[in-house]
Amino acid sequence: MKKISILGVTGSIGLQTLDVARKSEDIEVVGITANTSVLKIQEIIKEFKPKYVCMMDLNSAKEVKNFVKENNLDIEVYEGLEGLIKISTLDEIDTVVTSVFGMIGLRPTIEAIRKKKDIALANKETLVVAGEIVMREAKENGVKILPVDSEHSAIFQSLRGNKESELKKILLTASGGPFRGKKLKELECVTLKDALNHPNWSMGKKITVDSATLMNKGLEVIEAHFLFNCPYENIQVVVHPQSMIHSMVEYKDNSIIAQIGSPDMRLPIQYALNYPERKKEIATPLDFYDMCNLTFEKPDMDTFKCLRLAFEAGKRGGLMPTILNGANEEAVSLFLDEKIKFLQIGDIIEKAIENFRDRIDDALTIENIIDLDKDVKEYVRNNF
Amino acid sequence: MKKISILGVTGSIGLQTLDVARKSEDIEVVGITANTSVLKIQEIIKEFKPKYVCMMDLNSAKEVKNFVKENNLDIEVYEGLEGLIKISTLDEIDTVVTSVFGMIGLRPTIEAIRKKKDIALANKETLVVAGEIVMREAKENGVKILPVDSEHSAIFQSLRGNKESELKKILLTASGGPFRGKKLKELECVTLKDALNHPNWSMGKKITVDSATLMNKGLEVIEAHFLFNCPYENIQVVVHPQSMIHSMVEYKDNSIIAQIGSPDMRLPIQYALNYPERKKEIATPLDFYDMCNLTFEKPDMDTFKCLRLAFEAGKRGGLMPTILNGANEEAVSLFLDEKIKFLQIGDIIEKAIENFRDRIDDALTIENIIDLDKDVKEYVRNNF
Repeated sequence: MKKISILGVTGSIGLQTLDVARKSEDIEVVGITANTSVLKIQEIIKEFKPKYVCMMDLNSAKEVKNFVKENNLDIEVYEGLEGLIKISTLDEIDTVVTSVFGMIGLRPTIEAIRKKKDIALANKETLVVAGEIVMREAKENGVKILPVDSEHSAIFQSLRGNKESELKKILLTASGGPFRGKKLKELECVTLKDALNHPNWSMGKKITVDSATLMNKGLEVIEAHFLFNCPYENIQVVVHPQSMIHSMVEYKDNSIIAQIGSPDMRLPIQYALNYPERKKEIATPLDFYDMCNLTFEKPDMDTFKCLRLAFEAGKRGGLMPTILNGANEEAVSLFLDEKIKFLQIGDIIEKAIENFRDRIDDALTIENIIDLDKDVKEYVRNNF
Repeated sequence: MKKISILGVTGSIGLQTLDVARKSEDIEVVGITANTSVLKIQEIIKEFKPKYVCMMDLNSAKEVKNFVKENNLDIEVYEGLEGLIKISTLDEIDTVVTSVFGMIGLRPTIEAIRKKKDIALANKETLVVAGEIVMREAKENGVKILPVDSEHSAIFQSLRGNKESELKKILLTASGGPFRGKKLKELECVTLKDALNHPNWSMGKKITVDSATLMNKGLEVIEAHFLFNCPYENIQVVVHPQSMIHSMVEYKDNSIIAQIGSPDMRLPIQYALNYPERKKEIATPLDFYDMCNLTFEKPDMDTFKCLRLAFEAGKRGGLMPTILNGANEEAVSLFLDEKIKFLQIGDIIEKAIENFRDRIDDALTIENIIDLDKDVKEYVRNNF
């Protein structure tokens, strides 16, 4: 029986993780966390009977405490960041699914690693801003970092049984998002609704906008760099609009191994939770007799400069990914509030990088990352 | 240093194996065999300086012996089937590349396995007619059967690091050959030249015709069944005209792993000879920014009945694949001599199966296989 905590259980990945647990006979959901979604959490409590719950929001925590009392449930309810860390370091669990969104995932992930919990990683920010620290701590603690992103799961599966030293190149596929093929002129007036209209995947709003700017792919490039110890020069983004090939790796003999599947996040979640075993199907099988044409393109990094900026931040290293990520998070938030235009997202990130350039080479510590992230977000909020 | 013998060194796979050896620092070609190609063998002797040579044809063997004497070379020259077996069982070698074509490969392969030589298998007939025996002997002798066919190498690579018990399905890709999409009416008058005009691969004549009838894919289905211990029900042929995906496997979680590469046989040869290591590139890398559209179709087994017959023969088992293979070999030979029409190939195989039906369940022994093969070929030669 695998015992897990799910951080951010009411989000898209969290709910799909629950579905994997629902259809599995050997996954027990021991701890769950959410921010403010009290009603959803109550439903989840009824169905999965976890032993520990944390609500980030204090009022929501109170409501859940009342619910637990009224129903005579044997559940401990925690609150805030400290509660989040408790849930991620429970003695009873083997694995933490980090599906919270944003910087909030960083500390709980690090603490979980130090308590020797395997990490099913869906919280991009953790690796983007602190990949070096996370991978070092994971190595020191003998902990597995199991990717949940479909792309990184594909790379992970394609590397299976092969030697890291024989890897030549990662081919990270990208759908291209809703604005694929468009030029700057056409992107000037796109609306929030346009940006939220992703062709293949149904995801949260922030990541959907990131897919439209290609920043999502940029963040994935940085993740891939750390997860698979692969130089940025050897990570190639390939636009593949049908999202059937979830990514590929090329070996030194020029043989390419690819992972293919229906665009269903439950497959990589299931793989991460059961690795190295594969379990009975949960995602729909693909029918190659009914398969669309698969096409491939070069990404347009002039139009979609977020991807270019992410490569630059990754290569530069240090705290530059923290600036990139923080500025992007805040800019997307402004865009979701319809306070800025689509193309401003990239411009804002560029300006933030310029503004904080003198802090890039500060010591790479969790404290500095969190401080800088806060300052960058404040800067973006106050200036745009 | 890996020491190898190459059976059928002057054929297409044999020459490409030499090229792999030429570009490798740790493969030594110790033994080579050919049929009648004396001039080619002399060139190869000069370049690779093998210690043992066998010519199947007695006169050719004499010529090579003279050549060796005149040039004062320290080479032993053998002849005929016995010589072939000597070359495949040399004490000095680790691996035999069986790239001879036809039934002649069967005995040397079995003898090599019994002498604990790994087999880089390019001789289809061996597995098609005697897969059960070959795989059993390989297991008993702790010998690896390393596929050289691009499809089986792709499956082998896609299975790497995974458990056999988690394999759900093999997706064997097929280019569809030069007549893909054509119907019976259109195939009535195709010429030898049309049949030899393969869209993607440059191969020997027999296998090129087999690609046109889809019998090649049928034989590969039977090979895949034995190599990967996969029931015929779980082997699906997928027509993929661009021959970029060389085959795929689907696991029980519906995750598909595929191997992709340029259509260059040196890649699977190199992989087989160095397994489990991967060596520096020899095949051209693929450029996904310049990649054609990849398409997939269901094979038309009504028009291309050879594929259907191969599935039937495989499922029926026993000596039925021997009849299928022998009749096909002889029918293709007649077609190459322009004595029969293209569509007659399938008809002849069907008739041969009907004619020898009462021998299908004879004991599955090497002797019975060889006898039946001879009788089937004689039957085809005398009746069509």
